[in-house]
Amino acid sequence: MARRPLVTLLTDFGTADGYVGAMKGVILRNAPSATVVDIAHDLPPQNVIAAAHAVAASLPMFPEGTIHVVVVDPGVGSDRNILAVRLGGQVVLAPDNGVLSVLTAQHTPERIVSLRNPRYVPASTASRTFHGRDIFAPVAAHLASGVAMDALGPAPDTVTVLDLPVPSVSHERIDGQVLYADRFGNLITNIPGALLTEPFPDLSVTRVWLGETLIGPVLPSYSFTDEGQSVALINSMGSLEIAVNQGNAADRFGEEFGMPVAVTLRR
Amino acid sequence: MARRPLVTLLTDFGTADGYVGAMKGVILRNAPSATVVDIAHDLPPQNVIAAAHAVAASLPMFPEGTIHVVVVDPGVGSDRNILAVRLGGQVVLAPDNGVLSVLTAQHTPERIVSLRNPRYVPASTASRTFHGRDIFAPVAAHLASGVAMDALGPAPDTVTVLDLPVPSVSHERIDGQVLYADRFGNLITNIPGALLTEPFPDLSVTRVWLGETLIGPVLPSYSFTDEGQSVALINSMGSLEIAVNQGNAADRFGEEFGMPVAVTLRR
Amino acid sequence: MARRPLVTLLTDFGTADGYVGAMKGVILRNAPSATVVDIAHDLPPQNVIAAAHAVAASLPMFPEGTIHVVVVDPGVGSDRNILAVRLGGQVVLAPDNGVLSVLTAQHTPERIVSLRNPRYVPASTASRTFHGRDIFAPVAAHLASGVAMDALGPAPDTVTVLDLPVPSVSHERIDGQVLYADRFGNLITNIPGALLTEPFPDLSVTRVWLGETLIGPVLPSYSFTDEGQSVALINSMGSLEIAVNQGNAADRFGEEFGMPVAVTLRR
Repeated sequence: MARRPLVTLLTDFGTADGYVGAMKGVILRNAPSATVVDIAHDLPPQNVIAAAHAVAASLPMFPEGTIHVVVVDPGVGSDRNILAVRLGGQVVLAPDNGVLSVLTAQHTPERIVSLRNPRYVPASTASRTFHGRDIFAPVAAHLASGVAMDALGPAPDTVTVLDLPVPSVSHERIDGQVLYADRFGNLITNIPGALLTEPFPDLSVTRVWLGETLIGPVLPSYSFTDEGQSVALINSMGSLEIAVNQGNAADRFGEEFGMPVAVTLRR
Repeated sequence: MARRPLVTLLTDFGTADGYVGAMKGVILRNAPSATVVDIAHDLPPQNVIAAAHAVAASLPMFPEGTIHVVVVDPGVGSDRNILAVRLGGQVVLAPDNGVLSVLTAQHTPERIVSLRNPRYVPASTASRTFHGRDIFAPVAAHLASGVAMDALGPAPDTVTVLDLPVPSVSHERIDGQVLYADRFGNLITNIPGALLTEPFPDLSVTRVWLGETLIGPVLPSYSFTDEGQSVALINSMGSLEIAVNQGNAADRFGEEFGMPVAVTLRR
Repeated sequence: MARRPLVTLLTDFGTADGYVGAMKGVILRNAPSATVVDIAHDLPPQNVIAAAHAVAASLPMFPEGTIHVVVVDPGVGSDRNILAVRLGGQVVLAPDNGVLSVLTAQHTPERIVSLRNPRYVPASTASRTFHGRDIFAPVAAHLASGVAMDALGPAPDTVTVLDLPVPSVSHERIDGQVLYADRFGNLITNIPGALLTEPFPDLSVTRVWLGETLIGPVLPSYSFTDEGQSVALINSMGSLEIAVNQGNAADRFGEEFGMPVAVTLRR
């Protein structure tokens, strides 16, 4: 374990209450040498799909040895498992609700356990409504203090995977969906940029449609359109995204999960 | 003093401006070994009641030696005192406006002083509008550098206590009020869960009312109702709370301070 | 370089996504001894004027040796420069869009370079949409690891300065403009308090107008009016500000950039 172990927090708790502070206090009280790093706390409440993408966008950037705590947990107090997942030399704690499934689709886990060992997992004394403070934080502190992940419990029988829509590819056409909007109102789709390359070796002759609305070709960046114009591009996570240059696509077009997106060939 | 003293910040400054950053800069410039920890900055502006509960929910979790800075301060620039309060081996700086009174009702202070010593409290050179940067931050840095709290000034003549409504208990009925809504729209009441036990040894036969609206019995957790259903439960701070499972009770019912809440016996 | 170099982040990325976390991961992976400090992430999206004032309000407070990363960057992916600016013994990385120009008007830079050296600036492999993660963060990590700022590239030919409106002073009258609203809805103007002193040695006989609305005299602090009353004052950054005591001036009066503000003499 590093001499200054990093513990990151990614939650939908916001920062209008004492919830995040309570978690930090528990971690720092139990692991005084830890450094707590905020990843994000304003995830859309209980939106596991958006959280799963925030997890995949950020966690792989951290150094080996980092301990990540992900609490977007609409099932708190139910009998859902809590998982510890090791991948890339890091450990992630998260409820077993699919919030890690975008990450694990990209980075194969080395090991997964279910938090069951009462020596380290205070499930019996935990509140029914705030496992972030009562289970996730103390377990993260144990990991930061050198407890081995394998000691936390056995491998789970099953692991939940998000049931996300899959884009379909036909002759010179890809059909996909909007998954969520980010803070800038950019609409993130389920179409990987890599999928575009074969049918469309020249992106400049593509046409991207949001429902019946023609957005235009796939461009290299926002600034390839004028301010206020809509634009399609491959974003920093490698996905097709529909944006408005210096504006907000979600405000203009809505941000419903599942809005149809198509890429066709310009004739 | 710890080798890496923790200084926490709890404010209503938001993170859309440079205010929080200015405070952090002053602390780190004057106490280079300190570690600054954000508790929360999006407290509802100038809402001392919500802040008092965020303080009580988070500060006691931190380790001994932590220095806490609480700036929810609608009276900045008036002649209100600034207090330093020691409890549980930690020190809290806060305006004397009642923002600590929920905490101190639960944890008896060991010592309280008023920030008056000009050697450490730069009141004469401070701006009239930003004591967070000009008084709280430098005093926190002094504490982090080893200055004793008792050196900051004398005990105050009086300490402000929030005048919160008190629940009333009669035969098989408790009447209380909504105090505030949290980030999830959960309505936090002034009814401690402990108060329910005597009149209602079996919580399953209670009925909770929000005004004229029947919420249902006190349940163990959100997930004991269906998604979208309203639910009453004892929350992680030990208070009766009215929520909507995976939804927002404040959006559904409003979030006015003082909304009447009653617990009765199901007949 | 300090043994625990500070790297601050000031962005408009919000904390509803993984963007800030990705930047932190890259910094901590490449500079394991660094401490990352959040200044603000909820800057109004792509509002360079508000960001420029947040920069000026916070960065000068930090200790020598601090590395600041400012990413409010509507031109990402265009051919705008990225600058490294040394002033007061600190180094600031920012896009060359004027976001540093309020700061540099108050603190003369010791040195400015353009990030061009491919040894340290991974421009060729960077995404077109997320230079925060792909350029700013790794360069900040290089600086935190001891790379000299001068090694990052040559001095730029030009540096962008914000074209802000300038207040006009005539006989017993100053005319200025609203620049932006802060989190509390306080309207920040372009009129420096210092400008008021000569025409109005006695501030108590001034009158401040927002358009046609009389606000009142310049007062020492919010609390010199009753709750809910509008008030003009010199704020903690030394600028004339129009506020509502314990309320929100932007909600009451609007918050359009350029709203006319005048200071006259009470007759």
